Amino acid sequence: MKIPKPTIKRLAVYYRCLDNMLNEGKTYVSSKELAERLKIKSSQVRKDLSYFGEFGKRGVGYNVKNLTVELKKIIGIDRRWRVVVVGAGNIGRAITNYPGLYKNRFDVIAVFDSDPAKIGFSAGVAGPVKPMSDLKEVVSSKKVEIGVIAVPAEAAQDVAEQLVDAGVKGIVNFAPVTIDVPPEIAVEDVDITVSFKTLAYHLRKYGKYR
Amino acid sequence: MKIPKPTIKRLAVYYRCLDNMLNEGKTYVSSKELAERLKIKSSQVRKDLSYFGEFGKRGVGYNVKNLTVELKKIIGIDRRWRVVVVGAGNIGRAITNYPGLYKNRFDVIAVFDSDPAKIGFSAGVAGPVKPMSDLKEVVSSKKVEIGVIAVPAEAAQDVAEQLVDAGVKGIVNFAPVTIDVPPEIAVEDVDITVSFKTLAYHLRKYGKYR
Repeated sequence: MKIPKPTIKRLAVYYRCLDNMLNEGKTYVSSKELAERLKIKSSQVRKDLSYFGEFGKRGVGYNVKNLTVELKKIIGIDRRWRVVVVGAGNIGRAITNYPGLYKNRFDVIAVFDSDPAKIGFSAGVAGPVKPMSDLKEVVSSKKVEIGVIAVPAEAAQDVAEQLVDAGVKGIVNFAPVTIDVPPEIAVEDVDITVSFKTLAYHLRKYGKYR
Repeated sequence: MKIPKPTIKRLAVYYRCLDNMLNEGKTYVSSKELAERLKIKSSQVRKDLSYFGEFGKRGVGYNVKNLTVELKKIIGIDRRWRVVVVGAGNIGRAITNYPGLYKNRFDVIAVFDSDPAKIGFSAGVAGPVKPMSDLKEVVSSKKVEIGVIAVPAEAAQDVAEQLVDAGVKGIVNFAPVTIDVPPEIAVEDVDITVSFKTLAYHLRKYGKYR
């Protein structure tokens, strides 16, 4: 069955919320309570989870610990993923050193840049910035599956091709341009300005929203 | 009429693509061509735009320049927006200095932090980091409408309340937690790990995607 993409994004948000609840010492949660925390409808929570099985008990709700474990498996973060970042600018460095990535089982193992002036300088947790000429060897020897594009729009397509050629299976693209890669490569686009634009639309259009 | 949220996000992407085409010197584009560049269906493009009017001419397509101008108005970026960022860590600094924001008419005019050790140090384009005690005065005197939360999850709710109290109308929340604000405040959540998780799901589940 084809699961809608917004469902997958919400699963990631459910996981985040349940993980917080687990840390708060909560043992059971109803779909209503989960929905209220996330400001969505409880019918949405139930529908999204129903794609993957029966997780709740009538009158009791979901066991927080069990559902967290299940969601980890469903999303695919019951294992660690190796990541390389291309682009050692502000965005590339911020992603590389974002504690949430490591916590969610994504390990940035190297940062690359084409600018000779940046090579060798520390990129934080991933060590010194490496030259693009090392990309293929690092991806293959370290079995890296995910590449991050954190370069300006005009360099993104070339970097995408280099990442694919190096052997990554998926790309998170922070460049504000749509990249063209073979269909077997998964791509997630993150355009920071899109969120600001969506906000602008709502601020002007309705004055209120959500 | 209530416009679906994914439509708004796509409008922002259409705008980005058309703006690139304009720079390439393109004068007309068909929905098919636009859709191909963005790897979506042309019927989706036509449907999204039809909420707002008739922009294309049969057999000719859309006038790139005109549609760019129209989309700017629809999205609400035919004017500039003032933004403050709370949190002068890696993410806060990266957002503050992201050229795409200024280019898309969002001006980060100040960066705040609660850590005394960070106050006064340069946050790049927005000048020295300011203390939280200045937030209300800056938001009100500079007529700031958008606040960005770039602090850890545990501090996000408190920052959200301070931003609302200071008078912002919308919030872009980069903290990995759902914030609770009055319904008249617009919120856009950007959780960087959600994109990585969505990618993990697709890498494991299908091996291919999109």
